[in-house]
Amino acid sequence: MRHTLIMAVFVLWACKIAADTPASAITAAMAATAQKLMQQASLTNTGYEVVESLTTEVGPRLAGTGAEARARQWAVAKLTDLGFHNVRVEPFMVPLWLRGIERAEIVTPFPQPLTITALGGSASTGPDGVEAEVVSFESLAALEDAPEGSLQGKIVFVDEAMSRSRDGSGYRVAVAKRRKTAFTAQRLGAGAALIRSVGTSSHRFAHTGQMRRIDYKGEAGVPIAALTVPDADQLRRTLSRGVPVTVRLVITPQLLPPSESGNVIAEIPGAAVPDEIVLVGAHLDSWDLGTGAIDDGAGVGIVIGAAKLLLDVLPQAPRRTIRIVLFGSEEVGLVGAQAYAEQHAGELHNHVIATESDFGAGVIWRFDTGVADDKVPFAEAIGELLLPLDIEPGSNTATGGPDMKYLREAGVPVVGLKQNGWDYFDLHHTPDDTLDKIAPDILNQNIAAYAAFLYLAAETEADFR
Amino acid sequence: MRHTLIMAVFVLWACKIAADTPASAITAAMAATAQKLMQQASLTNTGYEVVESLTTEVGPRLAGTGAEARARQWAVAKLTDLGFHNVRVEPFMVPLWLRGIERAEIVTPFPQPLTITALGGSASTGPDGVEAEVVSFESLAALEDAPEGSLQGKIVFVDEAMSRSRDGSGYRVAVAKRRKTAFTAQRLGAGAALIRSVGTSSHRFAHTGQMRRIDYKGEAGVPIAALTVPDADQLRRTLSRGVPVTVRLVITPQLLPPSESGNVIAEIPGAAVPDEIVLVGAHLDSWDLGTGAIDDGAGVGIVIGAAKLLLDVLPQAPRRTIRIVLFGSEEVGLVGAQAYAEQHAGELHNHVIATESDFGAGVIWRFDTGVADDKVPFAEAIGELLLPLDIEPGSNTATGGPDMKYLREAGVPVVGLKQNGWDYFDLHHTPDDTLDKIAPDILNQNIAAYAAFLYLAAETEADFR
Repeated sequence: MRHTLIMAVFVLWACKIAADTPASAITAAMAATAQKLMQQASLTNTGYEVVESLTTEVGPRLAGTGAEARARQWAVAKLTDLGFHNVRVEPFMVPLWLRGIERAEIVTPFPQPLTITALGGSASTGPDGVEAEVVSFESLAALEDAPEGSLQGKIVFVDEAMSRSRDGSGYRVAVAKRRKTAFTAQRLGAGAALIRSVGTSSHRFAHTGQMRRIDYKGEAGVPIAALTVPDADQLRRTLSRGVPVTVRLVITPQLLPPSESGNVIAEIPGAAVPDEIVLVGAHLDSWDLGTGAIDDGAGVGIVIGAAKLLLDVLPQAPRRTIRIVLFGSEEVGLVGAQAYAEQHAGELHNHVIATESDFGAGVIWRFDTGVADDKVPFAEAIGELLLPLDIEPGSNTATGGPDMKYLREAGVPVVGLKQNGWDYFDLHHTPDDTLDKIAPDILNQNIAAYAAFLYLAAETEADFR
Repeated sequence: MRHTLIMAVFVLWACKIAADTPASAITAAMAATAQKLMQQASLTNTGYEVVESLTTEVGPRLAGTGAEARARQWAVAKLTDLGFHNVRVEPFMVPLWLRGIERAEIVTPFPQPLTITALGGSASTGPDGVEAEVVSFESLAALEDAPEGSLQGKIVFVDEAMSRSRDGSGYRVAVAKRRKTAFTAQRLGAGAALIRSVGTSSHRFAHTGQMRRIDYKGEAGVPIAALTVPDADQLRRTLSRGVPVTVRLVITPQLLPPSESGNVIAEIPGAAVPDEIVLVGAHLDSWDLGTGAIDDGAGVGIVIGAAKLLLDVLPQAPRRTIRIVLFGSEEVGLVGAQAYAEQHAGELHNHVIATESDFGAGVIWRFDTGVADDKVPFAEAIGELLLPLDIEPGSNTATGGPDMKYLREAGVPVVGLKQNGWDYFDLHHTPDDTLDKIAPDILNQNIAAYAAFLYLAAETEADFR
């Protein structure tokens, strides 16, 4: 019944689009093929198998490590096995930051351990740690307002909570404290810093994440770690007793000389205009705490699953080339994205459109565009074909995803297939980012949407610039 | 509206009980007082404040440690402040087991870390750890059937899952593998053992818990640790590839000479027959990973909150003495419970009835009794007064709680105010056992039930033997 209704809606939309847009843009035959791809998506298991394989056979794969190198080998083998063309690694260098010992405890008045994790890029306390009185601030803004010299030798605690939302907008607000606290605390004379995790989980997982781009050349900032939400609550309650609270923090990360990273590329060469590129990305690296299942194994599974569906279902390749890019070193500051933009500067004008899957494994609920104003109706017409997947039209403000930053800045049009991120920040950047958190049927809804979009963008003669 | 209905039901029950039971057992006035206590419970915050204080000001409190000693000091001060009488510590000795380094990783074929925790009482691998091929068994029973000598030097993995249920019955089945695997593995020649956590959480928390009573004098068993559920899934998937899997396990716990522990006791002395004792227990110690909020800070809060309600609401103490016992060293094998039974052997015949709150912070849904057959109708009549709290009648098979074991064996009647344990084993014995998991209103439902029960059992002239 529901299926019939969806089909009826689809046919109506297909007719409307055929009437509204130039015949050369999206033909009825193309719309029907897109529909077929969306239907076939629910029958496939490739996307889930890919993320199962990546998390099981590689696991955590921090930028610049041997594990990330194994992930590239895995990706080359997997993409080759699946029948993609021009599979290759495009290497670049990235500084190597490695986590060390991580330990914290309330020393007085109520001794007990605290669960923490160092922020990516943090300085080390040395093995003896930093033991000092804690000074709490309700927000980064409050810390920034602290009088100069008022925090000499202290441990700063920024106790700012993150709000939960479907679009993840709370993250953009909360992440500022992760990026800036160590540097502000250093300016004010503090010895170390703690933040309430940038995350929404009430479980006892600390949330890591990069402070500034790993190749940032300025001050190192004070050693800084994130407390889990229950531990931040605990420290807040302890401070509420109105007596001085002393904490000992020991974190011993190391920043090592640059090491090799790389982007992995694979293609479905275009049948008519192979120089014109529809780019779809995800990132291959992950934080070291979990197994990088939702961030961004899911994205890797989605884009490979979608492209594989095209290989399997289409009688021949679309007109334009579909290029999968699995970016390296995303987590430490979009280092792979910048390398790609530099290495491909000469052909970015041929990048017809680009997008990335990097927001977990939730259902796609909205289709945003980031195209030339006069191409919005055409881009929206593609989006309307996704309506049977319960994807609503969005706005022309898409970023395309983190790794699209440099392409977007170079004028490449983008779209955003926006996922529901309600529980994304319960898992993201924590030890709890593991395969069991991914629902295969929802992954397939994503694959259906990406497959239809990639096919239409690669088959159409129209442009988005 | 709902309140009115509950009141009407209550009045009907009160009338029925007044008609069914001897006037001396439960008078209409007593039933009305019980009703008043239940109503007042929702207005109090004592129970939650107690567990907030215990988890914040003491935190984890492993048997025999300085933290458990601080918990006793905390309890003495708290119980004295709240106006209880005869507040005292009854010390005993307990061997001291301390957790050390905990680290595990898959070495081949797919190197990645595993999240584990040592089981309580486990032997040490030494700092160099044990590295060996993993042999997986789907259950403890399958391990027990393995041929002698077939596991020489191997790491055993017992991959048996626990089922979730309201009454926690899955735990009693699953915990057998925690108790026995290390010893069976030793008999079969293995070098170490891993088990899938005895727990229901899909989050990445390993579940500790005692193997055998800490003063067990037999073989030590092989070093043994629990994998989190996602890590057990990961190891299972790795093994499914059909190639040998090697794991390195490093755990360095220590078993040290006996250290002081103790039970903390407080009373509301009986106004008429102070030698007759209604005992209500919870345990003060906790595992070291979390802060012992639901296990058993909640129980401590519930029993203190309920007894405090009696102090505040009743114009005078009930006829019999109400004795709160906060047991020490429960987690390592009911050591405090045995000490209490030995130290009070001479007065156990005066223990009219006993019960314990030690199953988390869920709502009470059932009232079980463990009384003489001919006293069941009377005990059930008390239970029926709890119907307004949505507590249904149970059976006469109550255990009274873990720490009631030795009292029950000595002939002391018991009751069980059974909590909903649906999510108890998501948190129990893990780092995630923290205060934020407790809902104050549900704690107050527990307090209402305990307050009514304690009052009626202490005020009645009837007996349960």
